[in-house]
Amino acid sequence: MTGILYGLGVGPGDPELITLKAHRILRSVPVVAYPAPDEGDSLARAIVAEYFPGGQTEIVIRTPMSLNRFPALEVYDKAAGEVGAHLDAGRDVAILCEGDPFFYGSFMYLYARLAESYRVEIVPGVSSLMACAARTGAPLAARNDILAVLPALLPVAELEARIAAADGIAILKVGRHFEKIRDLLNRMGIAEHCRYVERATMASERILPLEAVAADTVPYFSMILIHKRGQAWQ
Amino acid sequence: MTGILYGLGVGPGDPELITLKAHRILRSVPVVAYPAPDEGDSLARAIVAEYFPGGQTEIVIRTPMSLNRFPALEVYDKAAGEVGAHLDAGRDVAILCEGDPFFYGSFMYLYARLAESYRVEIVPGVSSLMACAARTGAPLAARNDILAVLPALLPVAELEARIAAADGIAILKVGRHFEKIRDLLNRMGIAEHCRYVERATMASERILPLEAVAADTVPYFSMILIHKRGQAWQ
Repeated sequence: MTGILYGLGVGPGDPELITLKAHRILRSVPVVAYPAPDEGDSLARAIVAEYFPGGQTEIVIRTPMSLNRFPALEVYDKAAGEVGAHLDAGRDVAILCEGDPFFYGSFMYLYARLAESYRVEIVPGVSSLMACAARTGAPLAARNDILAVLPALLPVAELEARIAAADGIAILKVGRHFEKIRDLLNRMGIAEHCRYVERATMASERILPLEAVAADTVPYFSMILIHKRGQAWQ
Repeated sequence: MTGILYGLGVGPGDPELITLKAHRILRSVPVVAYPAPDEGDSLARAIVAEYFPGGQTEIVIRTPMSLNRFPALEVYDKAAGEVGAHLDAGRDVAILCEGDPFFYGSFMYLYARLAESYRVEIVPGVSSLMACAARTGAPLAARNDILAVLPALLPVAELEARIAAADGIAILKVGRHFEKIRDLLNRMGIAEHCRYVERATMASERILPLEAVAADTVPYFSMILIHKRGQAWQ
């Protein structure tokens, strides 16, 4: 009997925003794996650190990031081999995923390498999308709204067309693209309907109007939320 | 001191997919409110029924639905008055929301009526979007994908243009629009990349290829997920 591979959404940052299911599985599996930067701590592990029962085998998947934030795939070949060896030996493995496993996560690299050979269960989590909306106090989408989720690196003309054509918009992974996007939103005359959020629900969370953001301080984990109706929710 | 109003995301259906935070608040507040159909049980309450500690005051917000699924707003005026009276008396009130409170939920009608007068805390939840992706075993979006969330009632030509222009697509509230959408996806030649899900993570969940769906059985709470890359996640 091979083990089960769990893709565990651990939520956006507040440890209390993990689901009961992910919490139970995290505490019961013998092996836990998680991504981490080249040097330093894993964010996914930090979110749920207080729940580790102790005595588990931990696999740290160190992923050196290039400028475009896509890691070398060899890292995942090696990690998949390591995870697969535990599964072959009958041990269940939980892979921790910030937010939700299937919403812009690096989990999919391991999933692609293991899903055909092993039993996999995905435990969905609270994503940064919903967390940012909650923290800014404005609905993401309602009624028959069209919602567009856009990575910040898109060219300005494409961002403009897509923002113009949707009711609710989330711009992800803002980072070094902030100034470009703020200029666009000012030009489109909708900056007042925009909310900037970084590290939603974490201790270091910041929520600011666009004009108050210093562009050189914007991290990768940041989002701009827009709703065309502004505060007119009634 | 007035009470706190909580917008509690209770997740998509599996009771274990509630967050630790929503679970804690649900068990500690003196007043719980939730939507329900004109006749019959509340889905939001059913999801978390096992967690009710007993002895709480319950406010059932009965919302008669018209064909286009938008209830009469008087219902929310009345419910907001009832909730507000508890808050004025210093009692915290939790409003239960299926999935996430700010993702196409009816909570926003109450939020619009109460947010300016009371302290409100939104507890984000696992939405149907992430739950459907998890259950079908295919990522919703990855890397620099553009994700479009589209209500099924859009005209066919608009759906076609928006599906063509995105990488990942979620079509919500399929219901009586199923046949129209299946025809479109067949014509676009992408039906094989589509997954149909109804009542994700509930006991009555069904996941089917499009061609196996009987159009007259499709409920409102159903979704079609599409990813252009199909299974090519590596």
